[in-house]
Amino acid sequence: MTASIEVPRGLQDVVVTETELGDVRGTEGFYHYRQYSAIELASSRTFEDVWFLFDQGRLPTLAERAAFTAEVAPLRELPVSVRDVLPAIAAGGTPLFGLRTALSMLPSTPMWDAAIEQRRLDALRVCAVTPTILAALHRLKSGLPIIEPRADLSTAANWVHMVTGSLPSPAVERAVEAYLISTIDHGFNASTFTARVVASAGADVVSAVTAAIGTFSGPLHGGAPDRALESLDLIGTPDNIDAWVRERILAGDRIMGFGHAVYRTEDPRARMLREIAVGMGGQLVDFAVAVERRVVELLAELKPGRRSLNVNVEFYAGVLLELCGIPRTMFTPTFACSRVIGWCANALEQSLDRKIIRPSAKYKGPAAPRPVPVPH
Amino acid sequence: MTASIEVPRGLQDVVVTETELGDVRGTEGFYHYRQYSAIELASSRTFEDVWFLFDQGRLPTLAERAAFTAEVAPLRELPVSVRDVLPAIAAGGTPLFGLRTALSMLPSTPMWDAAIEQRRLDALRVCAVTPTILAALHRLKSGLPIIEPRADLSTAANWVHMVTGSLPSPAVERAVEAYLISTIDHGFNASTFTARVVASAGADVVSAVTAAIGTFSGPLHGGAPDRALESLDLIGTPDNIDAWVRERILAGDRIMGFGHAVYRTEDPRARMLREIAVGMGGQLVDFAVAVERRVVELLAELKPGRRSLNVNVEFYAGVLLELCGIPRTMFTPTFACSRVIGWCANALEQSLDRKIIRPSAKYKGPAAPRPVPVPH
Repeated sequence: MTASIEVPRGLQDVVVTETELGDVRGTEGFYHYRQYSAIELASSRTFEDVWFLFDQGRLPTLAERAAFTAEVAPLRELPVSVRDVLPAIAAGGTPLFGLRTALSMLPSTPMWDAAIEQRRLDALRVCAVTPTILAALHRLKSGLPIIEPRADLSTAANWVHMVTGSLPSPAVERAVEAYLISTIDHGFNASTFTARVVASAGADVVSAVTAAIGTFSGPLHGGAPDRALESLDLIGTPDNIDAWVRERILAGDRIMGFGHAVYRTEDPRARMLREIAVGMGGQLVDFAVAVERRVVELLAELKPGRRSLNVNVEFYAGVLLELCGIPRTMFTPTFACSRVIGWCANALEQSLDRKIIRPSAKYKGPAAPRPVPVPH
Repeated sequence: MTASIEVPRGLQDVVVTETELGDVRGTEGFYHYRQYSAIELASSRTFEDVWFLFDQGRLPTLAERAAFTAEVAPLRELPVSVRDVLPAIAAGGTPLFGLRTALSMLPSTPMWDAAIEQRRLDALRVCAVTPTILAALHRLKSGLPIIEPRADLSTAANWVHMVTGSLPSPAVERAVEAYLISTIDHGFNASTFTARVVASAGADVVSAVTAAIGTFSGPLHGGAPDRALESLDLIGTPDNIDAWVRERILAGDRIMGFGHAVYRTEDPRARMLREIAVGMGGQLVDFAVAVERRVVELLAELKPGRRSLNVNVEFYAGVLLELCGIPRTMFTPTFACSRVIGWCANALEQSLDRKIIRPSAKYKGPAAPRPVPVPH
């Protein structure tokens, strides 16, 4: 056996690969896509522009934006093979697992056998059709007719339209677009790592994305904006905030929507989403802001020295998506609509490095081989 | 940012977790399941016994074997929800991707939310139904009626029957059974690692297995017994061996079925499968043995000092499965029928360690943040 290297459990802080796609600087409260502040992109660019940035490595000109939009529009259409079985898929599990089932049926070439341009087309198709599949699964499950994607709508407006059946106001479209842009990628999270492991074996884009969906569904992955809203429901009214929060903290329970593994500052996504929500206004936003303030104050009072007290992306993502009329069962699927672009970009980048990611395990069972007994 | 640890590309020899399930000792030419020689198990136990060993941590008594067989028999049945869409799935991709699509529809509880017994049942169902799904996809694609699993047949006999429509002879049943036992697990291969990454996020067994199938499908994963047979086809006749092999070696081409990343000895699986094949006899076996001998001799002559010259598991797996009447498109699916048990056992073991596997990437793009330009 070759000499082995022991590293921290969970590979924390172990560098496994290089990337040009982006990075999170937890102590600075900053994350970027190719050195453009993701928050700045979210407030000043279209979703298609940032998708192009991941796809092409640079931001598009206006002419390129138009060409890219025209290129992806037909890729949003549900393939006939998927459409036929979608009712059966919708009847089964969650929209996220239904997405996995449907994507698993798409053609996709093993990346090692495919030219770069083919890999790129496979990835564009997966990213473009993901919102269509998710919205269709939701509509079927709700007993509503499927709404087809429209080539004249942005990704954000299409999403709201396909899910709710209504065209969004400009404010809602912009809010959803900013949310989608800000969640395309976020450092080397566990689902992104999964996509890269699969890609490192030379497998296809669909294999990488369906695998990432599995990790993404895990309770430890984080990123379920509906969970944080549940806290607001449980508290119910402003005069109940203190009692509820104190009880949870003193019981040692985690309060969903607070704390982050990487950020030691305010989560920059939470700050942006709060600003947008406050701009939209309303009772839910006022309540959320009040809850946030008291949770942070009470955590500081009751758990002094805790590393991360701040509100995270889940909290205001939940508030914002609720304001935008997205049903709660579709909060995590909304997240998947943007993150799929990050997964694909990471899978394609990994496929350029012809080295399989294959670590070792340490065997810790009985020390010596044992003879196989005759069954009795 | 926290200090990061840099490790070899691909995490080679980096220990990420502990396991009680088994290990490969490449320099000794030995691998084991819970310290029982896998080869000894393959030649002396039933497939269900070894499945029980992975499931329960010990080999069963005769009474336990009977009880386990009775427990898994009904789990082989195709669920109605899957049966209805199987023709549509079969019309699409390969059997392996069809398996992923069909498994993705099965109910399965996130492991962190599920009691151990529930996780175990989810895993048993996935393992039991995998051969049924794969065989049904093959039959549908071939325009043949689906053959239902039979409770009175072993996993190996069922597999041959469901795929080919004929009951195997005792020799064929035993050959397939030995192949299946010997391929349940094999150290920390890339698909097994993928299953563990997904499980480490708290996700469900189906998510772990569908992700593993993606990695398994990658050209770099290895384990495609049909590839090695193609070499035999290309050589064609014994008098063509030397010329063909010399030409390939001198051109620097890889000869499929030879060499292994871990073994520095003969692959113990290859040795066992060759013995079984030679016992069954016939023209194909004689030809394969002759090819093997000349490839090894010519590699030693033309590539002295090469680390791994020996035949690997793919070569004689292909020969043996061909002798057993399994169609070549079903060679890799046959492998999946056994490896799924290894994936599930690894996923369940990983789920006991409540720590997500989440390494880091090193950002290597432009050094400084850049302002987002206005599009023009």
